[in-house]
Amino acid sequence: MPGTQRADARRNYTRILAVAAEEVAAQGANASLEQIARTAGVGSATVRRHFPTRRALLEAVSHDRIETLRLRAHDLTAEPDSRKALLRWLDDVVAYCVTARGLAAALSYDTAGTDPVRGNTCAAALEEAADPLLHRAVRDGTVTPDATVADLITLIVGITLATEHHPTPAPEANRLFHLAVTGLSPAR
Amino acid sequence: MPGTQRADARRNYTRILAVAAEEVAAQGANASLEQIARTAGVGSATVRRHFPTRRALLEAVSHDRIETLRLRAHDLTAEPDSRKALLRWLDDVVAYCVTARGLAAALSYDTAGTDPVRGNTCAAALEEAADPLLHRAVRDGTVTPDATVADLITLIVGITLATEHHPTPAPEANRLFHLAVTGLSPAR
Repeated sequence: MPGTQRADARRNYTRILAVAAEEVAAQGANASLEQIARTAGVGSATVRRHFPTRRALLEAVSHDRIETLRLRAHDLTAEPDSRKALLRWLDDVVAYCVTARGLAAALSYDTAGTDPVRGNTCAAALEEAADPLLHRAVRDGTVTPDATVADLITLIVGITLATEHHPTPAPEANRLFHLAVTGLSPAR
Repeated sequence: MPGTQRADARRNYTRILAVAAEEVAAQGANASLEQIARTAGVGSATVRRHFPTRRALLEAVSHDRIETLRLRAHDLTAEPDSRKALLRWLDDVVAYCVTARGLAAALSYDTAGTDPVRGNTCAAALEEAADPLLHRAVRDGTVTPDATVADLITLIVGITLATEHHPTPAPEANRLFHLAVTGLSPAR
């Protein structure tokens, strides 16, 4: 019986996660947990047991994309131009945040006000993966030592949230992020 | 009778607006319209008649702060350093967005996906007021011609939203905005 219960719970988890991914893609980070429960054919209490907070749900939904971005950061260490490697990775984060509704929310500061790295497993995973890219660029003198990966992710999260309702969010978010990368001083 | 009705409507409007300002300050942009109606002692339909959309309510609540920022932009045209004048004004926008919950939402893109200037009276009012500051700085060669006031406001809105749950939102938003002003290249 315990074995059957565990198998049932696993099936429930898998089904809820698949439904949640669809709902978040369609409705964004505020997708209705009640709707997810109804579509998955389980009670709200079951959804809450698997995902005690909305953030836990968003992090689970974002897991595959976070993994892809981690692997991408690892691959980009082979790119000889250290500044280009970092910026390519950041462009990928922008593109993922714009297209994957809910990812920006999963990467944003926790409502508990905890540290973005310690209190947010998604952001911490990305920070760990991209730190070598940033450190190499800083060591080469191609990027300022004043920014952390967490700073850059927070900027991207903000730009994604602020352009969410723009008629063409992807190019707009990309353009604004490059404005932030370039800064306000005129080209010299 | 029509005169009395108009006076009643004015009193209702003033009371609803005062209650709404308090609720938005306490709860943020998603403050409950039902709670505002209850506290103001009117029906939800009356609130909706005065403020057909949440944005209309947020814009009305933000009106005084928008006016102060407009006057501030006008005053700063007297500052001889054109770059400093623009950056001081933008710092004020950051400070207002961080402290006045709801202002960032009032300044963000409309959910209808309309142009930030044409479709958003708050952003349009700020853009009109700050355009002379930006144009002077661009003419002096102290600021890039690639950014518009709307771009800078969108960046500030994004940074405000992304740092809302940070333990110390004001210095964090300020620091990230200055990172965006400076850009990622190391100081030369």
